Parts: sequence; structure tokens; C-alpha cells
Amino acid sequence: MVQAYILIQTEVGKASTVAEVIGEMPGVIQAEDVTGPYDVIVRAQADTVDELGRMVVAKVQQVEGISRTLTCPVVHL
Amino acid sequence: MVQAYILIQTEVGKASTVAEVIGEMPGVIQAEDVTGPYDVIVRAQADTVDELGRMVVAKVQQVEGISRTLTCPVVHL
Amino acid sequence: MVQAYILIQTEVGKASTVAEVIGEMPGVIQAEDVTGPYDVIVRAQADTVDELGRMVVAKVQQVEGISRTLTCPVVHL
Amino acid sequence: MVQAYILIQTEVGKASTVAEVIGEMPGVIQAEDVTGPYDVIVRAQADTVDELGRMVVAKVQQVEGISRTLTCPVVHL
Amino acid sequence: MVQAYILIQTEVGKASTVAEVIGEMPGVIQAEDVTGPYDVIVRAQADTVDELGRMVVAKVQQVEGISRTLTCPVVHL
Amino acid sequence: MVQAYILIQTEVGKASTVAEVIGEMPGVIQAEDVTGPYDVIVRAQADTVDELGRMVVAKVQQVEGISRTLTCPVVHL
Amino acid sequence: MVQAYILIQTEVGKASTVAEVIGEMPGVIQAEDVTGPYDVIVRAQADTVDELGRMVVAKVQQVEGISRTLTCPVVHL
Amino acid sequence: MVQAYILIQTEVGKASTVAEVIGEMPGVIQAEDVTGPYDVIVRAQADTVDELGRMVVAKVQQVEGISRTLTCPVVHL
Repeated sequence: MVQAYILIQTEVGKASTVAEVIGEMPGVIQAEDVTGPYDVIVRAQADTVDELGRMVVAKVQQVEGISRTLTCPVVHL
Repeated sequence: MVQAYILIQTEVGKASTVAEVIGEMPGVIQAEDVTGPYDVIVRAQADTVDELGRMVVAKVQQVEGISRTLTCPVVHL
Repeated sequence: MVQAYILIQTEVGKASTVAEVIGEMPGVIQAEDVTGPYDVIVRAQADTVDELGRMVVAKVQQVEGISRTLTCPVVHL
Repeated sequence: MVQAYILIQTEVGKASTVAEVIGEMPGVIQAEDVTGPYDVIVRAQADTVDELGRMVVAKVQQVEGISRTLTCPVVHL
Repeated sequence: MVQAYILIQTEVGKASTVAEVIGEMPGVIQAEDVTGPYDVIVRAQADTVDELGRMVVAKVQQVEGISRTLTCPVVHL
Repeated sequence: MVQAYILIQTEVGKASTVAEVIGEMPGVIQAEDVTGPYDVIVRAQADTVDELGRMVVAKVQQVEGISRTLTCPVVHL
Repeated sequence: MVQAYILIQTEVGKASTVAEVIGEMPGVIQAEDVTGPYDVIVRAQADTVDELGRMVVAKVQQVEGISRTLTCPVVHL
Repeated sequence: MVQAYILIQTEVGKASTVAEVIGEMPGVIQAEDVTGPYDVIVRAQADTVDELGRMVVAKVQQVEGISRTLTCPVVHL
């Protein structure tokens, strides 16, 4: 199981809707609005890095109002 | 009371209008054009962090010509 | 109550220790190692923005091996 | 007269002292601690851009604990 | 002969197609999807720096769905 | 007299035209295509910082295909 | 098997040695000097994301002269 | 012949000396202090990209007080 934080920049004025829509996706543990260089921070999980990448591209990035996502996989050192 | 600087990047050619429009919003203390990685720097205040966030998303980001905002809340250490 | 994500860059080779030490601080909910532009992502909470700022400066940033922290307060829009 | 915002990154744990020391310099109007990618935001003024540059290099950057400054001159478009 | 890495940011949801299309261009050795601040990393080669620049502008950047490219020429120190 | 470098990011595929058009503007000394995080680097001059700012917003940023400009005034320390 | 690009910033003057040392590590496929915002680009592989993270922290980051590493895992979408 | 801009970040308080020292190196056409995210902008030339890279690593980066250099080769599209 791979977990990751997804740091999201949204188009202006879209942060709230984006967090709400992503928060209900399967595989998403939490999605919250933040201030700073990112607008939404998501915590998600998937079986493999490849599946995580697919989830980001095929589901998260399809949400209207997203301009950039930055996936940071959690590692256990 | 929470105060914050809002560092704004505008679409090309829009800096001047953006600063003018934001400068007249309630809660905004000052809005100025600058050179460098940001185009407009705003100083604003609100009752809470949540309200500040709402003000940025619901009012500031609705101004035409804004491409990114970066909110930096002032903290008293 | 204010919650925040703290995105941390560590000195090379220090990520693992930093996450461990911060993970045991009061006010810290979770501290994990990640790959990408940040090395550790922390979730923390405090009573006010000011107190959160003080916690970051007075406790988190005192941990040896941290080179930059970026605090992103959660907002409820 | 040229005015400018100086966005400052400090070494970890130094934000509070840096803001205090800079706040008392001649030419500095205000110096505050913030959260986000910058740690201190300063508003300053000088007679010319060259003098402003000299003030940043010769005075502001001499303060112990500063790691980067980013000067954004205010422009009147 | 000049070799280079081209770090590419794509529009949301376009990473996979972009990598596929670029991967078949003459002069491109490899094109892969990655996670992090970039979406696709390409390895390419050309006869001179000028020709490499032309290849990026005239071919790579013409691919639909690319928003930024960052060319890093390999140097032999 | 104020001189400045203007670091420009263009839309994909537009670097060459942008450099050409800007290179013929009054006040512009040189405009060249580069590789790396910027696409065009311009050297320009004006009587004051304000006039330089106006030149960037009113002329340079009006050129089609520019997505971001970053003005770095030259200072004599 | 997980593959990744590791984008490395070195201390000034250390790029060449860093690339040479990393190039001989097990798990490293290629390590090259580049110009631009990064100084060395490495291609590496490991069995899992966790192991890749450990390899970066325990081996790559131990090389003298490295100031930042940015790991970009390859994903197959 | 390859020409390039070298965008330099210096340690705090070192910009002026750095520009002066680099300005007298063979291969350097101009070296000036600027404000903004960079502290010194250099224009240089060399016979090849490799030689340019060597010049940056072996000479420019040896100057005391430099913390980062970013080489942007000029391309003729």
C-alpha cells in the first residue's frame, strides 16, 4: 500500500469546490483547503506507485478548477 | 483580528487594474503594484483565519486578471 | 482551534530523524517522510494562528537538521 | 522617493529577532513576522533604487539570521 | 553532439499522451511520466545547442497539453 | 537612468517571435532566446523605476505569447 | 521494480565530483552533470518506493557536496 | 561560440564583491548587481556548452560568497 500527499493549486476561486469533490473520491482519506502556495492538500492511498499516478491523472486531475498537482509519496525510511 | 499580506501574480498587462479594484475592497488596507516575482502586494485584515481565507477566495480572487494569490498571515511571535 | 500542514525541507540525510522527533511533540498530529520537493510533512494544531507560529518557531524549527519550514494553515471556506 | 517590500527568509528559529532588529532601522516603515514561504515582510523606503539596493545589502542583510532577501520595488503604473 | 534532459509540466490530465507523442520524435531517446513538480522527463539529443533549442520550440512544445518545458543540457566537466 | 533585466516566460512555441518583437521596442537594448526556466532575457532602460514598470506593463506585456515577466532592476552598490 | 529520476543541486563547485561518486553506486543507472536549476541528474532504481527513499537518504544524500535532492518516481500511466 | 546569462544568488551581503570579481574574469562580458530573486546577472561566452559548464564550475563558482548559479545558454531559434 502506498500513501501520498497531493498538494494542489486551483484556479482562482475554485479551492472550495475542488476540495469538496476530491474529498468524496475512493482512495482519498482527506481533502482540505489551505492558505499559502497550495490551495488544497489531499491525503490519498493506492496499491502501488503506478496506481497512485493513474488515480491522480485519471481522477483527481479531471476535477474542474485544478491547475497543478504535486504528488509526494510517503516513504518509510 | 488576523492581518495578512497577499502576494498576487496577475495576467500580463493587468497589474494596474487589479491593484486599483482590490484597493477599494472592505478589509483591504493597502494594494500596490510591485516589480519582481509578484505584481501586486496587498495588506488585508479579517476577524479569523477562516474569514481571511473566505475573503481571498470569495472577493480578491474574483477580480478579473488575477492568476495566483499567496496569502501570508502575520504572526506575533 | 487552528490546524495546519507544515511542509519541511531538511538537510541532506536528516529526514528520518526530523520526522521522528517532531512526531512526538505536543500539538503534532502526524509527521511523515515524503519524496519530492519536501522531505517531511507534518500536521499540527494550536489555539490561534499566533500560537501556531510560535510553535513552529520555538519548537519545530529548533529540531536539528531542518533547513526550511512552510506552514499552510487549514481554512474552512 | 522609492518604496519597496522586502520579503525575507530567515534561518530556522530566527524570524522573531530578525523582524525586531530590522524594524528599528532608519528607512524601515514596518517589519512583521509572517507564515508561508517567507518569514518576515518589511516595508522600506529610500531616495533612489540604488540607495535602496545599498540599504538592503549594507544594513538589512547584515542582520544575523537572514538567509535570503527578495526586494520588490513599488511602482506607480 | 549535445544531449539534454527536458523537464515538462503538462496540463492536468495530459501527462500520459504527451509522453507517448514525444517518445516517438526523432532525436528523443526516452520520454517517461513521473510524479513530483514535473510530469514528463525526456532525454533528447541534437547536433548543437541551437538545434536543441529549435527542436524543443518547433517540435516538443507543439505537442498539445504541454504548459512548460525546462531544458537542462548535459555538460561534461 | 534605470536599467533592468527582464526575464520572460512565454507560452510554448512563442519564444522566438516574442524576442523578435520586443527587440525592436524603444528602450530595449537587447532581447535574446535562452534555455532554462526562462525563455527570453531582455535588457532595457528607462528614466525611473516607475517608467520602467509602465514600459513592462504597457508595452512588453502586451506582446502576444508572454505568460510571465520578472523585472530585475540593475543596482549600483 | 521502481525507477526514478533524482534531480540534484550541489554546493558550488562540487557538481563534477558528486556525479562521479553517485554514478558508481549500486542501483544507479546513470549520473550526469547538467546546467540549469539542477546540477546533476541521476537515474536510479529500487524494489519499492520505500527502498528508493532509503537509498536516496542513506546513500545518495551522504555524498559530500549535495545541498538538495528531488526524487521523481517514474509512473506507468 | 556559445553565449549565456548566468543568474547568481549570493550569500547575504556579498553581491557587490561577487559582481566585481566575476566582472574581471576572461570570458565574462558583463557582471551587474540586480534586485529580485537573483543578486548578480552575468553575461559570458565560451567555445562550447561543455567549456561554458567548466568555466561556471571551475571559475565562477569558486568566487567566495556565491550560493547558487543558474546558467541560461542563449539559443538562436
